[in-house]
This record gives sequence, structure tokens and C-alpha cells, in this order.
Amino acid sequence: MIKIVLLGAGNVATHLYKAFKTTGNIKVVQWYNRNLKAIESFKNEVNITDSVNNLTEADLYLIAINDDAIENLSTSLPFKNRLVAHTSGSASLYDIDKKHKRAVFYPLQTFSKDVELDITTVPICIESLRKQDYTLLKNLGENLGCKVYKVNPKQRPALHLAAVFVNNFTNQIYRIGHEIAESQGAEFDILKPLITETARKIQDVSPYMAQTGPAKRNDKKTIKRHLRLLDDQDHKDIYNLLTNAIKKTHGA
Amino acid sequence: MIKIVLLGAGNVATHLYKAFKTTGNIKVVQWYNRNLKAIESFKNEVNITDSVNNLTEADLYLIAINDDAIENLSTSLPFKNRLVAHTSGSASLYDIDKKHKRAVFYPLQTFSKDVELDITTVPICIESLRKQDYTLLKNLGENLGCKVYKVNPKQRPALHLAAVFVNNFTNQIYRIGHEIAESQGAEFDILKPLITETARKIQDVSPYMAQTGPAKRNDKKTIKRHLRLLDDQDHKDIYNLLTNAIKKTHGA
Repeated sequence: MIKIVLLGAGNVATHLYKAFKTTGNIKVVQWYNRNLKAIESFKNEVNITDSVNNLTEADLYLIAINDDAIENLSTSLPFKNRLVAHTSGSASLYDIDKKHKRAVFYPLQTFSKDVELDITTVPICIESLRKQDYTLLKNLGENLGCKVYKVNPKQRPALHLAAVFVNNFTNQIYRIGHEIAESQGAEFDILKPLITETARKIQDVSPYMAQTGPAKRNDKKTIKRHLRLLDDQDHKDIYNLLTNAIKKTHGA
Repeated sequence: MIKIVLLGAGNVATHLYKAFKTTGNIKVVQWYNRNLKAIESFKNEVNITDSVNNLTEADLYLIAINDDAIENLSTSLPFKNRLVAHTSGSASLYDIDKKHKRAVFYPLQTFSKDVELDITTVPICIESLRKQDYTLLKNLGENLGCKVYKVNPKQRPALHLAAVFVNNFTNQIYRIGHEIAESQGAEFDILKPLITETARKIQDVSPYMAQTGPAKRNDKKTIKRHLRLLDDQDHKDIYNLLTNAIKKTHGA
């Protein structure tokens, strides 16, 4: 049994809490949040608190809060030599006060408040200073049914940055597709199967091999026609930049 | 029974041929290609030809070739007043010689030679000048199990342009994610569940609502850290442009 005190009440914390609850070998013994209201609805199933001075003993103190607040919260914890991990993709392991055993348990996925998520599809990236801490966090991830990856201090920020590209930037590209379709009264729904297939394809084939289209073929006529169709200067700039990036990648 | 002469042997033609073959109400009565070699392996199951003068009678002549070649091929067809449709998202309906009944049957999907595809997931965008031609093409699409959309001459190019964004540009973004991860020896596989979830999320929620991340939050510290991590100037430019686009979209 891995006993956890969970700290924070955002999307990641809430999704993790619900996932922990479903497994037999993990117990959230306490849930801390600065603002008790955010977790009050769980008070019948778990001990909740808004005071670090009331924190109970556990195998792991898991901090799932804003990056900027990790350092202060970890310093304010009134104990030492216990395992304290944060869930950030971006914050350093060393943001955690050095009085603790420090580690990172980074679930690389997009968590939204109202969108259900199958936790077993979430890869867990683990960084730790000591082998036994890694083992505990690996057990934790595997008990959730997740794939677990050991990462180093350079890999995790790189993965977080890559995640911004494939998640936030891709989503903005979807948004632009939505705008272009709707500008002519065409349904965004028509594009959804293509979006699904584009994401599915690279599960088996590298993005390099999966590429098609006018930029890869350097089809100047189509590119010119597309640029004429775009009246938003930002969309034009993104079209040009990504078209040139594809041309460069594929030597077109 | 809809009798089709298929013209062309690229990815779209080949995927359509295989899909037509599986349905009871559609028969490819002949397959034409300029270069017979490309379709020779099908000669035991369908009449093949490399000469427009040998073309047989059919309800539909479906041209699935490069945009630039549509006009010439349609002109060279030695008959008139028959239904001739092309499958391009970009070429005009009027690229087809006016001696024919002209239409467009545009399957909005990414077709790769060696990637199997469930044809029923492919939306078909139809443009036609006459109602009865629309009806025939709609039947054709529905017989394949596809969703069929009637589009106008402004909507189809807009959808094609939007498709370049959500397919080619998204794929290039995946490619950059791949490069960033591998630059630190991290596996691209770690990012695949996030890619899947990002595409899945917008099936139910608009891309606007689905957006998260440092750009939307205008998290200057993380953005600065990301820009420091990027050493490729093209990646930096794309990061800046898309970050600013997200900020603008979400008023951050």
C-alpha cells in the first residue's frame, strides 16, 4: 500500500485523485489545498485540510500546483527527509526544498476539468535523485496502469516543450481550420475525421514519413491559391512559416 | 447499380477502387491510367486500359489525378454529355471540359499508399451543377458508408485549405515535437497518447474551448524558458508565432 498526501486541487490533482481512488494498492490518506472549498465535496471520502501543520504521515507528498508555487509550498512543509514529488513538466526537481527527498512524477497528458480521461493512457515521466524513490514512484505509476518512463533533467523540459507543440500548437491549428471552414459556412465536423486520421497515422509511421500535401510536393500553384484565400494576416504568416518548414524538412 | 470508369492510379484512386469493390451497388467497369503498369496487378478483376479511345460506357467517369492534369484529360475524353467528376479538393469544377456534365466528388481525408483506411470515416464533399448529378454522387458516397456533404464553390477550397492546416501543418508540428524529444534522447512514443487525446478532445469540444497551456495563460516565465530551450531558429519562429496566435485568440 502506497500512502499519499495529495497537495493541490487543480485539473491534474483532481484527475490523479480520482485515478488513485480506483486502485487497490494506493491510498490518498489526505488531501491538502490552500483553499478548502475546492475539495470540500470530497470530505466524506478523504481527510481534507488547508493547513500544512495538520499534514499526516505518508509515503509520498505529491504536489500538483502551479509551477511558481512549488518552491514555497515545499519549504513550508513542517517535516524533512520525506519523499516530496511535484507533477510539473517544466519546474525543476530542485524547486523542491532540499530538506526533502525530492522527485518528479510528471503525467504527460492534457487534463481538462470536465473531460473524462482514461488514466492508463497517460505516460508518467519520473525523475528522482535516489533509486528507492524511483522504485516507489514507478510502482505508483504502474499501479495506475500507466506506462512509466525514467527521464533525466534535460529530457523532461524537452518533453514538456514538445508537448506544447503537439498539444497547444496543434490545437491552435485546429482552431484556425475551424475559422477557415466557418468563414465560408462549412461545418468544422467535416474536418474531424481528417484530424483523427492524422493523429492515428503517426502512431505507426513517423511524422516525417506520414507527410503529404502541397508544401511537401512544392506545389506552387496550390500554395499561391491558398495564400490568396487567406485574408487574415496571422493565418497567412502561419501558412508561410509551416509551408517553408515542410519544404525544408522534405527538401522540396 | 452505379457503373464507374475510374481514371488515375494514385493514392486516392487506389483507395477508392478498393472501397468500391467492397460494395454491392457500385461496379468499377473499367480502370484507366496513362501508364498501364500502375494498375496491371488488377487486370484479372477489372478491365484496364491506357487509352481514352477505349473507354466504355458508364454512369460516372471519376477522375482522380493531379490537379494540373484534370483539364487536359477531361478534354481528351472522346464523348460528351456524360457525368465526369474529379476528386480534387482544390481544382475547380470548371477545370472539367464543358462538354461534360461536371461535378466534384472530394473525399476529405489523407490517403497514403501503404496505410489502410476505413472508408466509412471519410467525409465526401460534393459539388455539382445539376440536381440529378448530385443525387447520383450522394448515392455513391452513401453506398460506401460515408457521410456526404453538399458544398459550394467557395466552401470546397476553404475546406481544402483548412485540411492543409489540420493535416499537413499539424503533422509538421508533430515532426517538430519528434525532433525536440529526440534531441535529448527522449522517446517520441511518450508524446503519442497526448497527440491522440488532443485530436480526440475536439471531437466533442471546440478547439477554442479545448485550449490549455502557457500561451493561453500568458505564463511568461515558461514561455521564456521554452524559447531558451529551442536552438533551431525555425522552431523558435513557429513557437513565437503560434504562442502569439493563442494569446490573441484567448485575449491573454
